[in-house]
Amino acid sequence: MIQNQNFYIKIIGNSSAIPTSGFHLSGQLINIHQNFFLIDCGEGTQIELIRNKTKYHKIDNILISHLHGDHFFGLPGLLSTYNLMDRTRDLNIYCPENIQDYIEYSLQTSHTTLKYKVHYHILSTSGKNLIIDSERFRLYSFPLDHRIPTCGFLFEEKERELNILKSFVDKYKPEIEDIINIKQGKDYNHKGLIIKNADITTKPKAPQSYAYCSDTKINDQIPQYIKGVTLLYHEATFNNSLHEFAIEKYHSTAADAATVAKKANACQLLLGHFSARLDDMKQLKEEACEVFPNSEISKEGYLYYPKRAD
Amino acid sequence: MIQNQNFYIKIIGNSSAIPTSGFHLSGQLINIHQNFFLIDCGEGTQIELIRNKTKYHKIDNILISHLHGDHFFGLPGLLSTYNLMDRTRDLNIYCPENIQDYIEYSLQTSHTTLKYKVHYHILSTSGKNLIIDSERFRLYSFPLDHRIPTCGFLFEEKERELNILKSFVDKYKPEIEDIINIKQGKDYNHKGLIIKNADITTKPKAPQSYAYCSDTKINDQIPQYIKGVTLLYHEATFNNSLHEFAIEKYHSTAADAATVAKKANACQLLLGHFSARLDDMKQLKEEACEVFPNSEISKEGYLYYPKRAD
Repeated sequence: MIQNQNFYIKIIGNSSAIPTSGFHLSGQLINIHQNFFLIDCGEGTQIELIRNKTKYHKIDNILISHLHGDHFFGLPGLLSTYNLMDRTRDLNIYCPENIQDYIEYSLQTSHTTLKYKVHYHILSTSGKNLIIDSERFRLYSFPLDHRIPTCGFLFEEKERELNILKSFVDKYKPEIEDIINIKQGKDYNHKGLIIKNADITTKPKAPQSYAYCSDTKINDQIPQYIKGVTLLYHEATFNNSLHEFAIEKYHSTAADAATVAKKANACQLLLGHFSARLDDMKQLKEEACEVFPNSEISKEGYLYYPKRAD
Repeated sequence: MIQNQNFYIKIIGNSSAIPTSGFHLSGQLINIHQNFFLIDCGEGTQIELIRNKTKYHKIDNILISHLHGDHFFGLPGLLSTYNLMDRTRDLNIYCPENIQDYIEYSLQTSHTTLKYKVHYHILSTSGKNLIIDSERFRLYSFPLDHRIPTCGFLFEEKERELNILKSFVDKYKPEIEDIINIKQGKDYNHKGLIIKNADITTKPKAPQSYAYCSDTKINDQIPQYIKGVTLLYHEATFNNSLHEFAIEKYHSTAADAATVAKKANACQLLLGHFSARLDDMKQLKEEACEVFPNSEISKEGYLYYPKRAD
């Protein structure tokens, strides 16, 4: 099956807190219509971005979910590497707490002066907020439920215009203004003869969406923020037998993640942010599938495509 | 050949500045008589320590050569991991500049309070200095020649006492005091009969030594500090064709490293800290071997044993 190369998620790291042999710390590369985002940047993220031959130099926006070290200690290294690569393009960093002082202090300690500009944006943790509104998509942040201020992120493709049939264009040679009107759903008036829009257009691809929820405990508000999301990445730090840890540490079990996916009416659930205590991913998947059948264990280095089940 | 498991170096990362696919940033684990040291801690060092199944939890001393990010950005992550592992033992960090503020600011930003104590030691960059003097070895720092204050390190095993022949002990059953005297080279007086020390002892294993020189340009003082070293790790960031970069950036070529090894009368040279610009390690080794034949390219994940050629 040919996947939509205009919207994918590459998992860079999906381990929690302590890296384990084979799992790396939180990091994801998102490509949405050739806009490249990095979500979280745990230590070693730049190394995995390089090893996985990603287009990491194209990243212009970095979204940090929260200030626990496993989600941002990789930033000074990545920013320094951009500097060594003579980056000149501006970079945006979004975070629910002040991260600017830490970055600047790290760079200063390492005798580094950046040749490019970094813009810092502090995210609100009150309700759902539109961060970026571009031609092809919208990006929102929304609060998660963790021990410190934490944000989730939602990428939503915009509804696309109708496709006009080539045979119609060839036959009637409509003006630019007519084309714009038809793409927006209007009928075509050919010398008094009304041609129905439905007869000369096809529907565009359905817009897809992707939500990132890590780190968080299960929370009733979250499904409201991501209603109908196509692909949901939700942390599943623990399995059912470690349920008490999840409550104590403000994390989720796989079943919690599945409950959020179900309540949000998501199409697909991707589990991640695994604890070093877990040794059986099959069990984790089973526990999620009992609640929400279309659940999957995320794999580092793999691409995932938000796609509505046919 | 059985190697001396009491003194080895494990290369964790030997890439310079920008990590490349397959090479990681500077880091080395040293075991000298069950005292575990980490030299440098580039981003990703903890991940490689875990992946290589090292006894990284036994590290009590971390030596940072200098404050360029590729040599220390891995510290906050490693210290946080120790915290999550409930470490209680003190940790020492040695560095030629103040690193304490950076560490404390990083931990504070990440909402982390350490459960163990960290002692910070600022290294002098004036001459050779004894840092640790223990029963079995001495550790020195000495200045390197880089763009910012930088130290090299020298581990030297102490001369061991003579071994007493078992047959002598069985026959004469010497007192403890006599044993101490014999081990120090004295003859044995058995009821007026003088038994020569050489007849009842064998020589101990020769003491070995290891020196770490990275980052630095070639410098005449360095061979003086490490005279007669058994194993020398010296940076070889560039090859001869990139000689001008070496001068400009205060780095060394492989031939520079070999010149230092030769002048120091070292036994073996280990090349490391490779630039991402290099694509032919064979050539690098050849250039070093022309000056100092016993030169080798260091490999990540490999153990190296300081050993005088037989």
